[in-house]
Amino acid sequence: MSRKTKGINAERELVHKFWGSDSWSAVRIAGSGSMKYPSADILATNKIRKLAIECKTAKKPWKYISKEEIEQLKTFSEIFGAEPYIAIKFRKKDWLFLSLDDLEETDKAYMTNIEIAEKKGLLFEELIR
Amino acid sequence: MSRKTKGINAERELVHKFWGSDSWSAVRIAGSGSMKYPSADILATNKIRKLAIECKTAKKPWKYISKEEIEQLKTFSEIFGAEPYIAIKFRKKDWLFLSLDDLEETDKAYMTNIEIAEKKGLLFEELIR
Repeated sequence: MSRKTKGINAERELVHKFWGSDSWSAVRIAGSGSMKYPSADILATNKIRKLAIECKTAKKPWKYISKEEIEQLKTFSEIFGAEPYIAIKFRKKDWLFLSLDDLEETDKAYMTNIEIAEKKGLLFEELIR
Repeated sequence: MSRKTKGINAERELVHKFWGSDSWSAVRIAGSGSMKYPSADILATNKIRKLAIECKTAKKPWKYISKEEIEQLKTFSEIFGAEPYIAIKFRKKDWLFLSLDDLEETDKAYMTNIEIAEKKGLLFEELIR
């Protein structure tokens, strides 16, 4: 399975989780990553809150995310009135949702790892509560 | 060019028009038409208004749109707090934007044609005014 297909499958899994919940809906946004405009992978809403989510899967116990990607997510969230989140799925772990403040900033990128994500991140049920 | 590719190109053209305007932003929504959830082709916003847009191109001087598609657009718009619009591009004509009330309802589908669309529809500049 290609990296792109894996990414899309992960996004679809999350979209299903939102629709499967009591009061949330979500859509995948097309062309995120390839278009030059600010974007996110998923936009979710319960009519009161809106979440703009960038999805990441990690084979290793850490993950680096480029500063540009975070900037795009931030800008998109401001424009669409949404709260920005990074959704991250480490191997054999549940999805964890990190707000941008929970990321560690390095010289060239933001990063997180299993330890930080499990300490600071929200589980899906906590996110939509 | 496949029908799907043509559709995506039409959507991209509209997304560019929004970003090219003074105060509007837009994203293409993935999987519209193939997923079972309410959706639209484009979500646009100027931070105050939100528009949920279904894009149609027409070779003939008329266009039929299934009732299911309109229902999905309506539901999506309610969930995401957006105004629903049909964007239609007839051959050699500019994009025209119709609200759902501007469509003619037939037994099995909604329809519009060049005459109605030119009379009731908004040009892009009028839509975003």
